[in-house]
Amino acid sequence: MTDSSTNMRLKLPIVCFILEIILIILFGVLVEYDHDTDARDFHNMSHHDYENDFYYRYPSFQDVHVMIFIGFGFLMTFLQRYGFSSVGFNFLIAAFSLQWATLMQGFFHGMHGGKIHIGVESMINADFCTGSVLISFGAVLGKTSPIQLLIMAMFEVTLFSVNEYILLSVLGTKDAGGSMTIHTFGAYFGLMVTRVLYRPNLDKSKHRNSSVYHSDLFAMIGTIYLWMFWPSFNSAVTAHGDDQHRTAMNTYYSLAACTMSSYAMSALTAHDGKLDMVHIQNAALAGGVAAGTAGEMMLTPFGSMIVGFLAGIISVLGYKYLTPVLEEKLKIQDTCGVNNLHGMPGILGAIVGAVTAAVATKDVYGEGLHDVFPLVAEGKREASVQGGIQAVSLAVTLGIALIGGLIVGFILKLPVFGAPPDTICFEDNIYWEVMITAANQLPLQPPGGGVTPAVGYQCQ
Amino acid sequence: MTDSSTNMRLKLPIVCFILEIILIILFGVLVEYDHDTDARDFHNMSHHDYENDFYYRYPSFQDVHVMIFIGFGFLMTFLQRYGFSSVGFNFLIAAFSLQWATLMQGFFHGMHGGKIHIGVESMINADFCTGSVLISFGAVLGKTSPIQLLIMAMFEVTLFSVNEYILLSVLGTKDAGGSMTIHTFGAYFGLMVTRVLYRPNLDKSKHRNSSVYHSDLFAMIGTIYLWMFWPSFNSAVTAHGDDQHRTAMNTYYSLAACTMSSYAMSALTAHDGKLDMVHIQNAALAGGVAAGTAGEMMLTPFGSMIVGFLAGIISVLGYKYLTPVLEEKLKIQDTCGVNNLHGMPGILGAIVGAVTAAVATKDVYGEGLHDVFPLVAEGKREASVQGGIQAVSLAVTLGIALIGGLIVGFILKLPVFGAPPDTICFEDNIYWEVMITAANQLPLQPPGGGVTPAVGYQCQ
Amino acid sequence: MTDSSTNMRLKLPIVCFILEIILIILFGVLVEYDHDTDARDFHNMSHHDYENDFYYRYPSFQDVHVMIFIGFGFLMTFLQRYGFSSVGFNFLIAAFSLQWATLMQGFFHGMHGGKIHIGVESMINADFCTGSVLISFGAVLGKTSPIQLLIMAMFEVTLFSVNEYILLSVLGTKDAGGSMTIHTFGAYFGLMVTRVLYRPNLDKSKHRNSSVYHSDLFAMIGTIYLWMFWPSFNSAVTAHGDDQHRTAMNTYYSLAACTMSSYAMSALTAHDGKLDMVHIQNAALAGGVAAGTAGEMMLTPFGSMIVGFLAGIISVLGYKYLTPVLEEKLKIQDTCGVNNLHGMPGILGAIVGAVTAAVATKDVYGEGLHDVFPLVAEGKREASVQGGIQAVSLAVTLGIALIGGLIVGFILKLPVFGAPPDTICFEDNIYWEVMITAANQLPLQPPGGGVTPAVGYQCQ
Repeated sequence: MTDSSTNMRLKLPIVCFILEIILIILFGVLVEYDHDTDARDFHNMSHHDYENDFYYRYPSFQDVHVMIFIGFGFLMTFLQRYGFSSVGFNFLIAAFSLQWATLMQGFFHGMHGGKIHIGVESMINADFCTGSVLISFGAVLGKTSPIQLLIMAMFEVTLFSVNEYILLSVLGTKDAGGSMTIHTFGAYFGLMVTRVLYRPNLDKSKHRNSSVYHSDLFAMIGTIYLWMFWPSFNSAVTAHGDDQHRTAMNTYYSLAACTMSSYAMSALTAHDGKLDMVHIQNAALAGGVAAGTAGEMMLTPFGSMIVGFLAGIISVLGYKYLTPVLEEKLKIQDTCGVNNLHGMPGILGAIVGAVTAAVATKDVYGEGLHDVFPLVAEGKREASVQGGIQAVSLAVTLGIALIGGLIVGFILKLPVFGAPPDTICFEDNIYWEVMITAANQLPLQPPGGGVTPAVGYQCQ
Repeated sequence: MTDSSTNMRLKLPIVCFILEIILIILFGVLVEYDHDTDARDFHNMSHHDYENDFYYRYPSFQDVHVMIFIGFGFLMTFLQRYGFSSVGFNFLIAAFSLQWATLMQGFFHGMHGGKIHIGVESMINADFCTGSVLISFGAVLGKTSPIQLLIMAMFEVTLFSVNEYILLSVLGTKDAGGSMTIHTFGAYFGLMVTRVLYRPNLDKSKHRNSSVYHSDLFAMIGTIYLWMFWPSFNSAVTAHGDDQHRTAMNTYYSLAACTMSSYAMSALTAHDGKLDMVHIQNAALAGGVAAGTAGEMMLTPFGSMIVGFLAGIISVLGYKYLTPVLEEKLKIQDTCGVNNLHGMPGILGAIVGAVTAAVATKDVYGEGLHDVFPLVAEGKREASVQGGIQAVSLAVTLGIALIGGLIVGFILKLPVFGAPPDTICFEDNIYWEVMITAANQLPLQPPGGGVTPAVGYQCQ
Repeated sequence: MTDSSTNMRLKLPIVCFILEIILIILFGVLVEYDHDTDARDFHNMSHHDYENDFYYRYPSFQDVHVMIFIGFGFLMTFLQRYGFSSVGFNFLIAAFSLQWATLMQGFFHGMHGGKIHIGVESMINADFCTGSVLISFGAVLGKTSPIQLLIMAMFEVTLFSVNEYILLSVLGTKDAGGSMTIHTFGAYFGLMVTRVLYRPNLDKSKHRNSSVYHSDLFAMIGTIYLWMFWPSFNSAVTAHGDDQHRTAMNTYYSLAACTMSSYAMSALTAHDGKLDMVHIQNAALAGGVAAGTAGEMMLTPFGSMIVGFLAGIISVLGYKYLTPVLEEKLKIQDTCGVNNLHGMPGILGAIVGAVTAAVATKDVYGEGLHDVFPLVAEGKREASVQGGIQAVSLAVTLGIALIGGLIVGFILKLPVFGAPPDTICFEDNIYWEVMITAANQLPLQPPGGGVTPAVGYQCQ
């Protein structure tokens, strides 16, 4: 079943070892504990222990961590026999990306005497960057080898960091929950990669590109965790105090409203009024994406609910009507529909953020304006200019994502990376030890291919 | 398989859209950030960021949030083909309830200049109220349409808020973990609803009212999360400091003792000594319910363990001997056995709370008496009176729950809400897109019905 | 299917009731709230609420709690029909162990006027001790009755507390994340128990000692939770401030590097380059174990990554080459391969800890040296001596674990405890109510045994 090109016996160990050894060397040369993690530095000043940033960020970090590893990992287990790969490759590329992101983000966010200083905030940011890679993974799910994914992650983390640097450091854009930097970037990068990797004969694996009953329940584990912890995601790196508090609450209400509109639209667009698991698993999360930029602003729960409500509608409509068009007309095979969950809701979030920023006033924010829009508070920038820059940031993000995805897509086409053939996509057995037995019948060939008897899976 | 009355194509979108639009309008008119979430207000005073309530409540909130969406949602996936509905309807009605509860609780808990002020504590309270609705959902599980559930949630949230207002604000009752307000209320409300909705021909769906191997494992995810995070649940809204700390610890030991007695009773009551998954999934949690009122008091770990120990025994006995009687004699078809997990343990918790309150002394609580029993500490009420009022509160709760459930049950009988027929209860396929295939055999008709060939489930 | 000796009808209730009643009595006599959980004591001093230890430890406690109940419980569900027992017995013995550990650790850690004082830190320590028991459970998984497990837990908790007392209190060893006290101890205790309980005819149950597709996905839930929350585990009881912060971060990077090397080694050691779920589920966690001792020290992310990298390699090699040898040559039937996940990585962690301690200097740690190595900071001990004592502690731990396991193993051989026969190991049906139906075929006899028709599982 595995031919030599997809055999990972030497390729995967070589890639993993080389990457990890490079990472270890670079960490040895470049990385240092920051003030709050260093035994000497933290004790040098008369700090109280409870002022350590650990206590303000770590619970949020762990929620984000769960979203990255359980949330994204299990969300993608909906495919009937790609569960090992969904959770397992998610695990692998996330473990790599968070290390690489520590270096890349540290490099761009400003070195301290030639050193990258790290602590809980950099851990959150590394997880955020990883999230972007996992969004792109969703677009190419089932059609790539683990080596392709690692290579993609390497480039994407780098480009993510460049884009993040331009937005946050150069332009002074606000995007705490990453509607632009994480979701829009990850989605359109991934969509471009999958466009370049277009497989005209993917329908040979079509019978596996679907769910079974229990695989949909596993996927719901991912969905619910993403949904629950999204308030922590959006608030994880905002300023302390009311900012974190407000961001979490705005996101909470955005998600709740989004869930209502997702269920409504799912029933409305079905020919027999039955709910579609794909919509529930994905569209109900769009409210978190769409609150990513404006969540820390004085959006109000009212505004958050409107945003979430619209995001759910847009997302279901995308799954129902846009995804088939993208595949047929634009040759974009978007396995998880990341355009509907991260792409369009991310753009919506960016626009909402731009508008909310443009109308920010000292009257509404009081002294809190320094936390949210420091340049505006200091009089260095008009609120309307801030709004315009937010909009420009969306264009920059789209540009870097699309061009980056284009280039990386062509790199991934190199035959040496062991991509699966068109007939064995969406299939764990090609990269994982999966024993074949008489239970869980599903032929490797589509029904009517007439070759393989009904076989299933059992591990030994 | 779906006739016109259960078709949700228009009904569900209409209900969801109307409810959500009403919610958004009411939020726009009535809801404001509270002091700790408002950018201006929080910065107006010389607060340190670490004094923001976010840092004292948000980790508990997230634990409660997991209980509501993962805990309740997956606990109910034990049914062999009602997993989509268990997690999915749980998701829908919770998303609705938490918004509606914000308004109802805000209205009753006291408006500020005509506005409802919200923050992390109101988010926890909204989740608590939602929990009560989900308990009632457990009683009617498998026998209701999503519209019926939304209508039930709308009324139940309202009545919950009335009862909570009477107890906490009028009577000065202590019930931080909601033995009465959440568990007793939710259970007896739901039991009365399911009584009114009695289906004499439910045995036509009996073959689906059971678990399969992996559905029981999914349910254990729910159980374990509820069990682990119950200490956070009971302590989420108690006073800061020793109160939260003590409540969490009391609950931890109550649950541990309860688990021991649940296993013991499960083996003891089985004819062949084999453990019953139903008991483990449910009875082991009764210790959390029973510590809901007294958990914040000086119950001591010793007292907590006795309470949990008894709760486990009562709960297993209920599942084994009482549930069949309730169904046969009283026509109460309690799918999840909420009487055994939430009802009787809730009453036990209320009684324990009344007794513990009655013996509270300044000698034991010191200045901490102000946190737990402010009226007693201020000399406005004798401890014994507090105990009596706790007992009265149980009666009030039972009264409102039963009368409320009666009325709401009759409302839900209106044929327009699309309830499933007796032959298609406990079945996802009626409201969810579930492809039928040759795997996972289970006929829609009971064995011997002779009509349907062996068919199963596969999504596309 | 169950003969009288394995019937738990009376045995299990008797054991559970006796144990729990003893626990309750001892708690009543010996246990008191500590300063931060007692209403009077906490209010006696002019403490701010935010200084209560609850806010510094409880989020970590809950992460540890998830590792104990979800992490360990689901990790062991990989067996195809031992899921109920894996999660369920894990639940039972953990609920018992945490109560018993509270008493044993309280007794050894120092009584206060004849009383054991408990709070969130003792809860974490009780969970830690429980973790050690669950590691041993992994070694005997599928081959023991619940009564044997409770008896084992009773003795193991006691011996764990003795060993922990010798290390932490007598020798002044540092082992915050328990590379020695938890992992090495639990692994070698369990390995010795399973050696004594050697079953020469275990291959009669060999066909059940393997996974199926979805059981491996359930196991990944356990793996990922253990992986994500290991930073909280290692940092849960370190000193506040930079210590907790640094420990969590070191562990984070150790695990990431470990995941990379685990994937590499899994592909490299497979004959066809396919990844093995056993390696991913287990070896990727070895980085957490190996950072258990040195995690709180100034190991640096660089050092942590090297440790994790090596741990992953050692662990996969252990699964691939050592486990079969242990079984064939040494008659150690290690179901979960705890030697590879906890044993060898624990020893590695102890050695790394000894070396890191030996090179600790005031120059590197500054005033923080008091937190990490108080005896060295106070000039009572040279750093090199501390390193030597760390190494001695490993030997002490191994000694107590092996001798303890030997004795307890022989106790568990008493026929009265209802161990399963060789033909019905790795099987839920012997202790759990599991309905047999035509789905999920797997014969109780091995294929070719010729007796049992293809039957499966369905609960009612």
